[in-house]
Amino acid sequence: MMQVAAIPRLRLQREGPAMKAVVFDQYKTTPSLKEVDKPRPGPGEVLLKVAGAGACHSDIAVFREFDESFGPAQLKPSFILGHESSGWAEELGDGVEGITLGDAFLVYGPMGCGHCRACSRGQDTYCENAATMPHLATGLGRDGGMAEYVSVPVRNLVPLGDADPVAAAPLSDAGLTPYHAIKTSLPALAGGGKSALVIGLGGLGQIAVQILTALTGATVIATDTKQDAMERAAANGAVTVPGGPGQADAIRELTGGKGVDAVFDFVGAGPTIALAMGVVALRGRVTVVGIANGTFEWNFYAVPYEVELTSTYWGTVEELHEVVDLYRAGQITPQVSVYALDDALEAYRALEAGELSGRAVVAPHGATV
Amino acid sequence: MMQVAAIPRLRLQREGPAMKAVVFDQYKTTPSLKEVDKPRPGPGEVLLKVAGAGACHSDIAVFREFDESFGPAQLKPSFILGHESSGWAEELGDGVEGITLGDAFLVYGPMGCGHCRACSRGQDTYCENAATMPHLATGLGRDGGMAEYVSVPVRNLVPLGDADPVAAAPLSDAGLTPYHAIKTSLPALAGGGKSALVIGLGGLGQIAVQILTALTGATVIATDTKQDAMERAAANGAVTVPGGPGQADAIRELTGGKGVDAVFDFVGAGPTIALAMGVVALRGRVTVVGIANGTFEWNFYAVPYEVELTSTYWGTVEELHEVVDLYRAGQITPQVSVYALDDALEAYRALEAGELSGRAVVAPHGATV
Amino acid sequence: MMQVAAIPRLRLQREGPAMKAVVFDQYKTTPSLKEVDKPRPGPGEVLLKVAGAGACHSDIAVFREFDESFGPAQLKPSFILGHESSGWAEELGDGVEGITLGDAFLVYGPMGCGHCRACSRGQDTYCENAATMPHLATGLGRDGGMAEYVSVPVRNLVPLGDADPVAAAPLSDAGLTPYHAIKTSLPALAGGGKSALVIGLGGLGQIAVQILTALTGATVIATDTKQDAMERAAANGAVTVPGGPGQADAIRELTGGKGVDAVFDFVGAGPTIALAMGVVALRGRVTVVGIANGTFEWNFYAVPYEVELTSTYWGTVEELHEVVDLYRAGQITPQVSVYALDDALEAYRALEAGELSGRAVVAPHGATV
Amino acid sequence: MMQVAAIPRLRLQREGPAMKAVVFDQYKTTPSLKEVDKPRPGPGEVLLKVAGAGACHSDIAVFREFDESFGPAQLKPSFILGHESSGWAEELGDGVEGITLGDAFLVYGPMGCGHCRACSRGQDTYCENAATMPHLATGLGRDGGMAEYVSVPVRNLVPLGDADPVAAAPLSDAGLTPYHAIKTSLPALAGGGKSALVIGLGGLGQIAVQILTALTGATVIATDTKQDAMERAAANGAVTVPGGPGQADAIRELTGGKGVDAVFDFVGAGPTIALAMGVVALRGRVTVVGIANGTFEWNFYAVPYEVELTSTYWGTVEELHEVVDLYRAGQITPQVSVYALDDALEAYRALEAGELSGRAVVAPHGATV
Repeated sequence: MMQVAAIPRLRLQREGPAMKAVVFDQYKTTPSLKEVDKPRPGPGEVLLKVAGAGACHSDIAVFREFDESFGPAQLKPSFILGHESSGWAEELGDGVEGITLGDAFLVYGPMGCGHCRACSRGQDTYCENAATMPHLATGLGRDGGMAEYVSVPVRNLVPLGDADPVAAAPLSDAGLTPYHAIKTSLPALAGGGKSALVIGLGGLGQIAVQILTALTGATVIATDTKQDAMERAAANGAVTVPGGPGQADAIRELTGGKGVDAVFDFVGAGPTIALAMGVVALRGRVTVVGIANGTFEWNFYAVPYEVELTSTYWGTVEELHEVVDLYRAGQITPQVSVYALDDALEAYRALEAGELSGRAVVAPHGATV
Repeated sequence: MMQVAAIPRLRLQREGPAMKAVVFDQYKTTPSLKEVDKPRPGPGEVLLKVAGAGACHSDIAVFREFDESFGPAQLKPSFILGHESSGWAEELGDGVEGITLGDAFLVYGPMGCGHCRACSRGQDTYCENAATMPHLATGLGRDGGMAEYVSVPVRNLVPLGDADPVAAAPLSDAGLTPYHAIKTSLPALAGGGKSALVIGLGGLGQIAVQILTALTGATVIATDTKQDAMERAAANGAVTVPGGPGQADAIRELTGGKGVDAVFDFVGAGPTIALAMGVVALRGRVTVVGIANGTFEWNFYAVPYEVELTSTYWGTVEELHEVVDLYRAGQITPQVSVYALDDALEAYRALEAGELSGRAVVAPHGATV
Repeated sequence: MMQVAAIPRLRLQREGPAMKAVVFDQYKTTPSLKEVDKPRPGPGEVLLKVAGAGACHSDIAVFREFDESFGPAQLKPSFILGHESSGWAEELGDGVEGITLGDAFLVYGPMGCGHCRACSRGQDTYCENAATMPHLATGLGRDGGMAEYVSVPVRNLVPLGDADPVAAAPLSDAGLTPYHAIKTSLPALAGGGKSALVIGLGGLGQIAVQILTALTGATVIATDTKQDAMERAAANGAVTVPGGPGQADAIRELTGGKGVDAVFDFVGAGPTIALAMGVVALRGRVTVVGIANGTFEWNFYAVPYEVELTSTYWGTVEELHEVVDLYRAGQITPQVSVYALDDALEAYRALEAGELSGRAVVAPHGATV
Repeated sequence: MMQVAAIPRLRLQREGPAMKAVVFDQYKTTPSLKEVDKPRPGPGEVLLKVAGAGACHSDIAVFREFDESFGPAQLKPSFILGHESSGWAEELGDGVEGITLGDAFLVYGPMGCGHCRACSRGQDTYCENAATMPHLATGLGRDGGMAEYVSVPVRNLVPLGDADPVAAAPLSDAGLTPYHAIKTSLPALAGGGKSALVIGLGGLGQIAVQILTALTGATVIATDTKQDAMERAAANGAVTVPGGPGQADAIRELTGGKGVDAVFDFVGAGPTIALAMGVVALRGRVTVVGIANGTFEWNFYAVPYEVELTSTYWGTVEELHEVVDLYRAGQITPQVSVYALDDALEAYRALEAGELSGRAVVAPHGATV
C-alpha cells in the first residue's frame, strides 16, 4: 500500500440513534466494540442494514502494524472496520432511484474520487486522485460494515437477488480479488490443453480454485502445505500437489512437461514466487496476489520466453456483478464461520490466532435471512 | 432508438436568476430561444458556464420527427437542447470534490441510472435501466448545453486542460462516436499492411479519418460524393475514392485485391452497407455507424468468411478522456463554425439546410477563451 | 464454397501394391469401393495406415450436387474421399524427422500452398493461393482417408498419444469446426453470468455443447426439433429448449431477459439465423456455422447494438492440437457408428437417408486398436 | 539461449560448382571467407541467389564466446553464417509450386521441426522439438545467407515485390524482433493519450521507433547515451531524453506524470531494466528485448500494480510478412552500410569494433538491383 501525506478527514456522518460497531480507534490497538451514532445516508447513498461483514487479514495489519509514520494516511483512526460487507436497503439518500427497500446487496468496497478515468470504468482501486482522497474504501478509512448499519454510495451496490447475503459478504474482497486476477489471465487459459496453478489455499485460494474450475477447461493444480486445505481444493476439482521436495517437478509433470499456463500465487513470499516462475510455461502468465512482500530475481535467461510476471489488486464494480453471478449460479460457495456482532472481537482473535479454516463473517442481524 | 412507455419526468432544477437557452418545447416545432431559470447544481453536480454546444443532426430528428407516438418517451418536450457541450466550472454541488472553479471541461452526454453494470463501467449508453430513466442524456430529455449554463454530474466531466473548449464541444458526440467504433475495431487494424475505409465524410467521418491516421498504420481510404469533403479527408491523410461506377473496384485495388480490414459506414443506407460488405476482406470488420436505416441481405456465401458485421452507439466516459487526449495532442482538429447564442436558431437552420461544412458550435460566452 | 476455374491436377501417387478405397470417380454418382494403387509418401509426407475416416454431409454434396459447371474446380473427380481421418504412421517420406512409426495421428484436412501468410499460421482454409491450388484438402480433391492407407504432409499430423484413433477421426472436421467458432467467440463468454446458445444438435452441435461446457462457465442452452438430440445435449450439460412457438421467449427467459452472449447456428437457414439474431444480447455475437444458405435482413434498428454477426469455416492446425487435448482429457466424446471399409457405401447411404444419430466412421483395419 | 546436448548434424548439401561464403569453422575463431560447394535445393526448398545478408551481434557471440561446453550444441562449427538474408529465386526444389524464378524474397530465419504446434502457427522460435533439432535457424547451425547462394524451405520465404532486397535483409531479425515485441504490446498502446519508451537506439531500437510511430498514436520517447543515435530517433518522430541524472524524471514528465504505457528495453542490462520498471505506468507493460543479461529485483510493492514484465524472442512468419508490408509502404527504412562479399570479414570487424552506425549488409551480387 502506498504511503501518503496526512489528509484532512471528511466528517463521518454519525447522528441520531445509536448502534453497535467494531471501531478501530487507536493505532496498534485491538478495535473496540462500542456504541456509535447510527449513520444516515448522504446524497446518492443507501443505508444498509448489515447482513454480513467479513473479517480480513488486512484489518489486522491496520490495527496491529500501522502508525503515524507507517501505513496509508487514509487509514488513520478512528473508523468502523468492515471492507467486505452486505446488507438490506433500509433508507435511501437524496437522489437515489431504482433501489427497492428490503432488497439485499453486496458492497463494492473501494472508493475513489468518482470522476477520474479509472473511477469512470468502475476501477476505484486505481483512482488517479487516491493520494488526496480521505479514505481508501468502505471499512478502510471510511466507516465500514462491521456494525448494525452502514451507508454506501448507490453506485457501490451489487444486487444479490434471493441469494444468502450473509455468506456473500466475503465475496466483495475474497471473491473479487481472485476473480479479477483470473479474468485478466483468461486469454492464457483459453482453449483445450491448458493448466492453471493456485499456490496457497486460504480463503482466496479456495475461491480461486472454484472460479478456475467454473470458467475454464484447464487442469487446475493446487498446492499448499496444509493437508485439509488441499482436500478442500480437491473436492472443488483441483489436482493437488503437496509442498516440499519434488513440488515443482510434480507440478510440471501434471502439465506433460510443458509448464503451467497461468499461475496465481496467493502467498507472494520469495519461495512461492520462485516456484511460480519455476513451473510456468513459455508464454505463460504469473500473477502475484499475496502480499508477503517476497522478491524475485528476474533475469532474461532464467525465465521462459514471453512469460508475463504481474501483480493485481482487488477488482472492478462490474467484476463484482460477475462474482455475484457465479455465487447465485452455485459456481462459488465461500466457506464461512458466522459470528454475532457481540462476538466480532472473538472473530478477529480467532483469525489472528490462525484458528479459522473459512472466512469469519459477522452477522449483526443473525445468520438466517 | 428504442421506443419506451411514458415515464414521469424528474423535476428540472430551474431557479434563481434567468438565462437564455434553446428550448425544445413542442413536438414537430422549431425550438425557441428564450429566457429560463439559471440552473443550480444538485448534489454531486457541477454548474458549468457553457463554452460551446454543438448542433447535431439528431436534434433535428428530435424536434421534427418525434411525437407522442413515435420516438423515445424520454425525449418528450420540454427541455434545453445541446447534448455535446463544454464549459467552465462555475459552482459545485454538495459533495463534489477535486474540481477547480474556472477549469474547462467537456461533458459526457449519456446519462444512465449510475448503478447498473453498464453504468459502472462508464457506458451509460447501454444502461440496463434505460427504459425507466427520465432522460437519455444531457440535452436529450434533460436540460443540455445550448444555454448560458448547464448543470451536470461531476462523473460526466472530462478535463480539457488548456485546450480550446469551444472547438472541443462537438467531440463529445462527433468525436466520441467514431472513436468508440474505431477503438473496438483496432484489433482488426493492428500491425503492418492493414487498410481502413471511411464511407461518408461529414463531421463524424472527417474525425474518423483523423483518428484512424493517428492511431493506426493502416492505409486510410475515404469515399464520399462531395468533392470538397474528399479534399479535406485527403488533407488529413486519406486516399480518396469517388462514388459512382468503379467505386468498389477502386477501393479493392488500393488494398492489393485482398479487401479492407475495417470498414466504417457513417451513412448506413442500403447501398453504403452493401458497398462495405462488398469490399471488406476475409476476417475483416464492418461497423455501421450511420443511422440511415438501410438493410443488408446477409448470406453465408455472399460475404467473405469470418467478416464481423456490427453496429455501434456513442461511447464510454473513459473513451471521451482518450478523445480529449487526441484533441490536446493535436491529433484531432474538429472543423467548427461558431455562432453566438442569439444566433443558435440560425445554426440549426443552416444545419437543416445542409449549408454547413463543419460542425456548428454555439458559444454563449464568445469564441475566445 | 468458391467457384474456381479449371486447374491442372497434380499427379496423385498411386503405385505399387493395391488397396481398397472409396473413390469419387464421376460427378453426380455414388462413389465406388474399388482397388487402387497403395500410395507412397512423397517428400515431407507420412504414409498412414488408416484408423478411421468419417463420412461427412459435405461428401454427399460433392458426389450428388457438383458438376462441371457448379462446385469448386478442385473437386473434379476422381479422388479418394475422406477429409476427416486418422491413422498410424506406416512409412516416412524423404526429409521427415521426429515421427515414430506406429504412433497414431489425426489428420488436419485443409491443404493450401504452404507458403502464404494464412498457411504460415496454420490456417490453410484461407490460403491466399487457394484459387490456383489443385485441391482443397485431403479427401477434397486430393486422395483422402477412406481407404486402407493415406499419405499426408507431416505438418498436417496431430499426435493422438494413447487415445482411440478410430473415434477420433471425426474430430478433424466435426470437432475442429465448432472448436474454431467457439474459440473465436470466447471473449464474449469470458467471466461469470454468461450464456451460450447452440442451434441444431447434429454431430457438430453436440460437440459444440461439450466444448462450451468444458471451456466456459456459461449457461449452455441447446435447441433442436428432435427430442433425442435434445436429450443427448442435456446429458452433456445443456439446458434445452424445444423448437416451435415460444422458443425465443423461452431462451431469452433462461438468460434473465438480457439475451444470449454467444449464439452458434449449426443450421444456417433463414429461420435459424433469425432466431439467433432475435435472442442475442446487446454486445453479443452470432456465428453462423451451418451452410443451409439462409438469408437474414440486417438492419441497424432491428439488431441490438454492437452485436457481431459472423461466419466461420473449419479451423487451424494448432486448434486441432487443442481439440485433441480436449479429447484426450475426456472433455469431448464424439458419438460414432463404426463401419468396416467394405461397408463404407452403406455408411454413406445411411448418412444420406438421415438414419444416423452419431458420426459414421469407416475403420479399414477394425474398430479396436 | 538454451544449452543442449550434442546432436548429430544433418548433412549439409554442398555439391556441384563452388561459391564464396563466410564460414564459421572453428570455435572462438574469426570466420573465414572461403570457397565451398554451391548448395542445391532439397525437396520443398528454394535456392536463392543472395541479395543481402546482415551482420548481427549474435554472430559475434557465436564465433567469439561459444565452445564445446558453452552455447547451444546446434551452433557447433562449421556452417555458413548469415541469419538475416534475402535473395532472388534461382532454382526450385522438388514439390515447390507458386514461386516465380527471379522474384525477390526475404528469409524467415528460425527453423523448427515444422510439425509441432508452435511451428504450425509459424513460430519456429518456440519449436517444441528444438532440443533435438540439428540447427536453430538458417545461418545458425544451418548454412546461412553470407554466401553467393543459400537454400531455404519455401515456407520460410516472404515476397519482397519490387522493394530493394539488399536493404531489406536486416529486417528478418533487426526488423522482426522489435516488430514482434511491439505487436504483442499493442493492446497497451491502443487509443489516445498513450506513450511508449524505447531504451537503446542501436539497429533494433531505431526500427522500433519507426514501427511505433507508424502503428500507434502514442508519444514515442527514446533514450540512449549516444547523441547521434538520439538525433536519428528524433528524425523518425521520437521525443528524446538523454541518459544520466534526471533521466527517469524527464521521461515521466513527458507522460504527464502517469508513467509509460509500454517500455521496450533493447539493452537488457540491470540499470536499463530498472529504468524501465521505474518509469512504467500502472497497468503498463515492460518488454526486455536486449540480452545484456541484467537482473531486476521484482517486488510486489516496488512495481506499480498490474505491470507486466516480460521478454521476447524473434517473431513469426506472418509477422515477417507484416514487416515487409511496412517496408514496402515506406514506414520502415533500415539504415544500412553495404559491403561486397569479399569485404564481409571487414564488416564483422567494424561491427565488433563498434564503428558502425547502421546495419552492415553484405551484398554478394552488388548493391543495385
